[in-house]
Amino acid sequence: MELTGKSVVVTGGAGFIGSHIVDSLVARKNRVTILDDFSTGREEFVNRSAGVALVRGDLLDQDLVDRALAGHDFVFHFAANADIKDNLKHPRKNVEQNVVATQNVLEGMRKHGIKDIAFSSTGSVYGEPEIFPTPETCPFPIQTSLYAMSKVAAEGMLTSYAIGYEFRTWIFRFVSMLGPRYTHGHVIDFWRKLRKDPTRMEVLGNGLQQKAYCHVLDCVDAIFTVVEKTSGPINIYNLGHTDTLVVNDSIALICAELGVKPKLEYTGGTRGWVGDSPLIMLDTTKLRALGWAPKHSLRDAVVDTLRFLDENLHLAEIG
Amino acid sequence: MELTGKSVVVTGGAGFIGSHIVDSLVARKNRVTILDDFSTGREEFVNRSAGVALVRGDLLDQDLVDRALAGHDFVFHFAANADIKDNLKHPRKNVEQNVVATQNVLEGMRKHGIKDIAFSSTGSVYGEPEIFPTPETCPFPIQTSLYAMSKVAAEGMLTSYAIGYEFRTWIFRFVSMLGPRYTHGHVIDFWRKLRKDPTRMEVLGNGLQQKAYCHVLDCVDAIFTVVEKTSGPINIYNLGHTDTLVVNDSIALICAELGVKPKLEYTGGTRGWVGDSPLIMLDTTKLRALGWAPKHSLRDAVVDTLRFLDENLHLAEIG
Repeated sequence: MELTGKSVVVTGGAGFIGSHIVDSLVARKNRVTILDDFSTGREEFVNRSAGVALVRGDLLDQDLVDRALAGHDFVFHFAANADIKDNLKHPRKNVEQNVVATQNVLEGMRKHGIKDIAFSSTGSVYGEPEIFPTPETCPFPIQTSLYAMSKVAAEGMLTSYAIGYEFRTWIFRFVSMLGPRYTHGHVIDFWRKLRKDPTRMEVLGNGLQQKAYCHVLDCVDAIFTVVEKTSGPINIYNLGHTDTLVVNDSIALICAELGVKPKLEYTGGTRGWVGDSPLIMLDTTKLRALGWAPKHSLRDAVVDTLRFLDENLHLAEIG
Repeated sequence: MELTGKSVVVTGGAGFIGSHIVDSLVARKNRVTILDDFSTGREEFVNRSAGVALVRGDLLDQDLVDRALAGHDFVFHFAANADIKDNLKHPRKNVEQNVVATQNVLEGMRKHGIKDIAFSSTGSVYGEPEIFPTPETCPFPIQTSLYAMSKVAAEGMLTSYAIGYEFRTWIFRFVSMLGPRYTHGHVIDFWRKLRKDPTRMEVLGNGLQQKAYCHVLDCVDAIFTVVEKTSGPINIYNLGHTDTLVVNDSIALICAELGVKPKLEYTGGTRGWVGDSPLIMLDTTKLRALGWAPKHSLRDAVVDTLRFLDENLHLAEIG
């Protein structure tokens, strides 16, 4: 579909991926409204250009959502609880912030006659699949985390609204994203630990977990490629490198960049945490068929992330 | 696992399937607490035996849920919004009554250290699958209704709690159930219409939709078979006849039983409503391998339903 000239709401527009979406929209001369509660979004990521409005608040506040959506044509719904590792510490958070909040956005859209929505889902929806690389058509054998469950539910809402209310939806099943503005995940965890003590480091699991990644700028490029080249009611795409990094290789890369040689202490087991998937490797044939290819290697993505962190040392104190 | 001697909560225990579960538990000498808000449950279905407690109220009331669960060992969570046909008229109902309410039950169980839960899911989770009969391992290609989405979400919560909090769960993906205490679905819709006007009847869709059914007493029998013969953390079973009835055949059967010959007026299209699945045919090999087989034919199930309705004419006035 054609995004040019559209007025766009970006929920989570002050967050890691959402703020890059906003930057791209601004570069494309779209009018943008950011809706963010700054629970994980950051003031310094907010695009301050003319033509960008900022609405602060919680997606659980339906009136606020309704007001933010008024007068817009398209929604990038990227606000979410993205904390998969600690999902068992706050079991309601995923239902509230990823399921109920998503329905609030959809109901706000219905109220204002907005029909088009792009959504940040996750490769974790496949649980522990039996097919690698995992295509979009793979079964979801069993949901192993409340985070992934909440994304499956949100996807189901989006497709039901597409079928029931004639919405159009673009669903992206992300691998782990890296790059500038990255504020949570294993690279920052390792970076924080090594800043505190470069001589030793605890590693969750056995270090053999293997996951796909992607540079956030390649991610944004892929999202715009898909949205602009497809226009059916339901568009579901895996998004990321099909290549993977093993946790131990990722650690070696980080240590080399930081110039440290810590003694590694493994907590053991094939999973980093309960519900962790030991292998995430997505089939991105469908996405690549649209002409997209990543411009950043996984190594570059890790290095770019570390460079960003080193330029933003205050992030070491958070979380 | 062994149900004997267990204290059991049945949510939706005044409803169609839940009340039969209660009756079976009473016959097995289990102590039972019914938790029901009587939104679709009915006073006349409540088992009034000694040893059966009744708690009236809404699963969205967490305090009430917590109180009802105290002192019990096992939960049959069968309360739900089961209205699939009109899901687009009240889009929030499925999230509230099937997703949030299910999490309230799970959180109440965590509070009281209850670990075991059986759950009424649906064959609709498969959306419009490409494999017939559809096995439990089939992909969920796309959710076509908010009802099915909510059951997928609830299943994902149950499996995440099994993995994350060491729960055990028995998930049943039901076909359409028939038999005594049946109060919603196409048989009662046709019965009501034909009582009002036996000369003509509107049929949603083209009459060629083909669906699997099961007699509720066979359903209850299957549920107890599975719960008693399995004890892993996650047990997922399709439940019903693999045989199907075409809507037109079902109508012919109903008309023959009622002795009427209406002119049929089709609304047209392959689906009865938006999100309707034109073909539901589940593979029940996994269930049958445990020794279960239905005792009632689909014809008997329809006839038993009509007999129940004719003995409960006041049901014609509801809904």
